[in-house]
Amino acid sequence: MQIAIVLYDRFTALDAVGPYETLGRLPDAETVFVAEEAGPVRNDSGNLALLADRALAEVPHPDIIVVPGGPGPLPLAADGPLLTWLRTADAASTWTTSVCTGSLLLAAAGLLRGRRATSHWLALEELKRHGADPTGERVVTDGKYVTAAGVSSGIDMGLTLLGRIAGDDHARLVQLGTEYDPQPPYDAGSPEKAPAHLVELFREHSGVILT
Amino acid sequence: MQIAIVLYDRFTALDAVGPYETLGRLPDAETVFVAEEAGPVRNDSGNLALLADRALAEVPHPDIIVVPGGPGPLPLAADGPLLTWLRTADAASTWTTSVCTGSLLLAAAGLLRGRRATSHWLALEELKRHGADPTGERVVTDGKYVTAAGVSSGIDMGLTLLGRIAGDDHARLVQLGTEYDPQPPYDAGSPEKAPAHLVELFREHSGVILT
Repeated sequence: MQIAIVLYDRFTALDAVGPYETLGRLPDAETVFVAEEAGPVRNDSGNLALLADRALAEVPHPDIIVVPGGPGPLPLAADGPLLTWLRTADAASTWTTSVCTGSLLLAAAGLLRGRRATSHWLALEELKRHGADPTGERVVTDGKYVTAAGVSSGIDMGLTLLGRIAGDDHARLVQLGTEYDPQPPYDAGSPEKAPAHLVELFREHSGVILT
Repeated sequence: MQIAIVLYDRFTALDAVGPYETLGRLPDAETVFVAEEAGPVRNDSGNLALLADRALAEVPHPDIIVVPGGPGPLPLAADGPLLTWLRTADAASTWTTSVCTGSLLLAAAGLLRGRRATSHWLALEELKRHGADPTGERVVTDGKYVTAAGVSSGIDMGLTLLGRIAGDDHARLVQLGTEYDPQPPYDAGSPEKAPAHLVELFREHSGVILT
């Protein structure tokens, strides 16, 4: 099995590395980081660069696609290289997945029309505008499409899909190996749980975050 | 403030990116990935490479040091470039931190003698042999030394230290922005919680994992 994790300028690193470190431990799978061109790809803050080992053109038919998100601007151009590749790759994939605003890329490529999906909590309205049916769940599976909520949700998605493909015990092994027994020091991980004034702060600035 | 995240051959990616994505959002902080030489550094599986933007020699006195772990072999040579740099950098740092077996590097550099600390659950005995006082906690703070348990624990560590430095509300903001509201699909994230046969499988192979 080939897993392709797509990188593009200003992606969010944990969106990519969460699923990488979990789903990427699928037995007999080869994971490859891909981008429009092979080479270093800078993240949203500019101070982290992951290497795309292959160009999109070299990886036309991965079995599993993973699209991380980012704060934007996202490469949403319908006839741009990323969405063009996504449509072709998705036609042959076994699973097409995303983390955070990565689902906006899937939706903009036309892949989530009428499908239940999720995204970063700030982007759920925009996901709806692209034709998907947004839920507030952390990991959503609709057919072969698996989408995750914001940033850290990719870890839960990776384990969920890993269990689906390789069986629960294998996913438990990976959870144990990555010691994924979360103990967040605060309880502010969603807009429902965080203090209202902090949620408001985010909503006020979301125009900045997502453009 | 300068945060230096150390990379070395066969490091574990999520160990580095977890704290990066949380602690790295400290206001007015500059985060830099460093390694013995600037350039791409391959992870434990060989299919992911992060760019070290600076060489260790160019970043002699970061305010915060973050040392990720890996399955080994680790660069534990007492007079090797990494441990030599660690001792000097630690002498001036405000915080010296690690994730997973990264604490073995801190301990081998002599920084954790008699200090409470933690590591990947498979490495707690080895941590003790290096003179530290291992606890099974997920994030341990002893003076300026903050160590985290395995792999994914770096996220909890990042938020803990972020809260300590920038205040609880700022850490809550980052938790909200990274939507860190974990919902693991299984409950096997520690040796206490995982099924005994899976824990046993790991212990049998830990010689392979840590050498």
